[in-house]
Amino acid sequence: MAGAVPMVEVWRGGMAESRHRGHAVICDATGAVVRAWGEPDAVILPRSSVKMIQALPLVESGAADAAGLGSEELALACASHEGAPMHVARVAAWLDRLGLAEADLRCGAQPTRDRAERKRMLIAGEVPCQLHNNCSGKHAGFLTLSRHLGGGPDYNDTAHPVQRAVRAAFEDVTGMNSPRYGVDGCSAPNFATTMHGLARAMAFFAVARPDAPDARPRAAARLVAAMLAHPDLVAGEGRACTELMRAMDGKVAVKTGAEGVFVAILPARRLGVAVKIEDGATRASEAAIVGLLAHLGVLDRDHPAARKRLGDPIRNWRGIETGEIRLAEGFA
Amino acid sequence: MAGAVPMVEVWRGGMAESRHRGHAVICDATGAVVRAWGEPDAVILPRSSVKMIQALPLVESGAADAAGLGSEELALACASHEGAPMHVARVAAWLDRLGLAEADLRCGAQPTRDRAERKRMLIAGEVPCQLHNNCSGKHAGFLTLSRHLGGGPDYNDTAHPVQRAVRAAFEDVTGMNSPRYGVDGCSAPNFATTMHGLARAMAFFAVARPDAPDARPRAAARLVAAMLAHPDLVAGEGRACTELMRAMDGKVAVKTGAEGVFVAILPARRLGVAVKIEDGATRASEAAIVGLLAHLGVLDRDHPAARKRLGDPIRNWRGIETGEIRLAEGFA
Repeated sequence: MAGAVPMVEVWRGGMAESRHRGHAVICDATGAVVRAWGEPDAVILPRSSVKMIQALPLVESGAADAAGLGSEELALACASHEGAPMHVARVAAWLDRLGLAEADLRCGAQPTRDRAERKRMLIAGEVPCQLHNNCSGKHAGFLTLSRHLGGGPDYNDTAHPVQRAVRAAFEDVTGMNSPRYGVDGCSAPNFATTMHGLARAMAFFAVARPDAPDARPRAAARLVAAMLAHPDLVAGEGRACTELMRAMDGKVAVKTGAEGVFVAILPARRLGVAVKIEDGATRASEAAIVGLLAHLGVLDRDHPAARKRLGDPIRNWRGIETGEIRLAEGFA
Repeated sequence: MAGAVPMVEVWRGGMAESRHRGHAVICDATGAVVRAWGEPDAVILPRSSVKMIQALPLVESGAADAAGLGSEELALACASHEGAPMHVARVAAWLDRLGLAEADLRCGAQPTRDRAERKRMLIAGEVPCQLHNNCSGKHAGFLTLSRHLGGGPDYNDTAHPVQRAVRAAFEDVTGMNSPRYGVDGCSAPNFATTMHGLARAMAFFAVARPDAPDARPRAAARLVAAMLAHPDLVAGEGRACTELMRAMDGKVAVKTGAEGVFVAILPARRLGVAVKIEDGATRASEAAIVGLLAHLGVLDRDHPAARKRLGDPIRNWRGIETGEIRLAEGFA
């Protein structure tokens, strides 16, 4: 990642106090690079930004239809949700309909990030379970596919039919072999690709149509439609993915990933976008994707959801303005 | 900050997933640079890393003695404490002895970062006050000095006698004029300096002796002794400053600052150290200072407090090892 370039700055006292470097790639319908900052060939772990890729086998295999999944479940399969009651209840009901339970998940228990629910649970003395894990929808999807394929319980194993199907789909839509993988926070394998590969995959989703002859683009179109239809299920109130998809009137799908990753799928423009902040900072990946979406003309820089991540003053404990987040010169 | 160099990496799946660049400077007793990574002339906002400098006028003016402050209060004046009951009670008692109250503070209310207290307050429906602000000790020091100097209530104003005295001391020990300032999270002015200036100031503290003829080095020695005597008051249980000072048997003072700053004062070695992570990440500044202190032979890399920040495996929600934090090649 030697070639990461300055993308986002945090200003205070009339100077850039901190600076975030990164890579960004915009790909067109042919998978070619339209514009890039940093190194398109940098290998990254895309983390949760590729949940819609990880959900492709669920849909294209027929497993989703066999289990009667609707667009809400498909949105949850692509989600990094905040474990609010609306997310937890839907994943629980999904598992219940399959005759499965929380204990069948292999994502680990994570505290809810919904403030009201967190407070309620704390006072009630309730402990978080695997349903609260931000990846529980993805894992419910893995379980659904595993049952369809007749796989064993360890669906996170790279040799398991679920992960073999995920890897095949991943390598297809990124247009390259994955050189390695890391174990994600939810214990699923996370396949590496290049910045170009990730943007190319998002362009694949952008051009996918529901009436395509092949199952894969049909599945991709259905997953994008589900994300756009349920921005609240993809993340949650106050979160970047939810607020930005709403701000763009449900016409552009966006997805965050841990360690500074953000992607966007622009169906009307037939473009895919990928961002990786070298140092892994979420404040920077959010500002960078806002900058890129505004640069592409699909997000109003003055929309509150945009300004919240890029432009609004940073205030301290007494409400005094102390600085702001800006794009670095030369970026977007 | 163009010349920041790779200092810390976060590994996952056999690759560096994220990388933090930064600057680091080690200064000797003469103020000369012994060793540097990145740019010694980079201008930074040192944030809370310079609280011991901001406390110099409190001691050297005689205000601390006039108010009967002991080493606990002096440690709190240098602290970014977590607002645990032990910190809040001491600052409250300090203000009470001065005939002042929480409302005289100008640092703003901040939630306590002590988990048990946070839970207790949440359940009890109590709201945090300015005493919980991690800077409340520094501000109690400002109030003590202000009373001694006959200043008005707005002690955060750069024209106020308190901040004029702070600036004069700051420019003296950094060895240079401060080119600008930013408003800190606690509303106090935070004067900018270079990496070299910050390391030089820490070297000044390292060589300061309690029997020095001048009031400033005597005050510096007293503040370092207070930090070393009360590592729990400087930060809190579980926090880097507290754990690292204990790990070094109270022989080296360290202090964190927001946005990736960390400093160290090594009296026995007569050295001062300054670190600034370009992107502002605390995980990286903590790993970098651990690496530097180990490099200098004053911290055991295998001590649990060191390994917690550099070397221990990172585990996910299921306790599975997913990666680790490492120093970048060529750093420390």
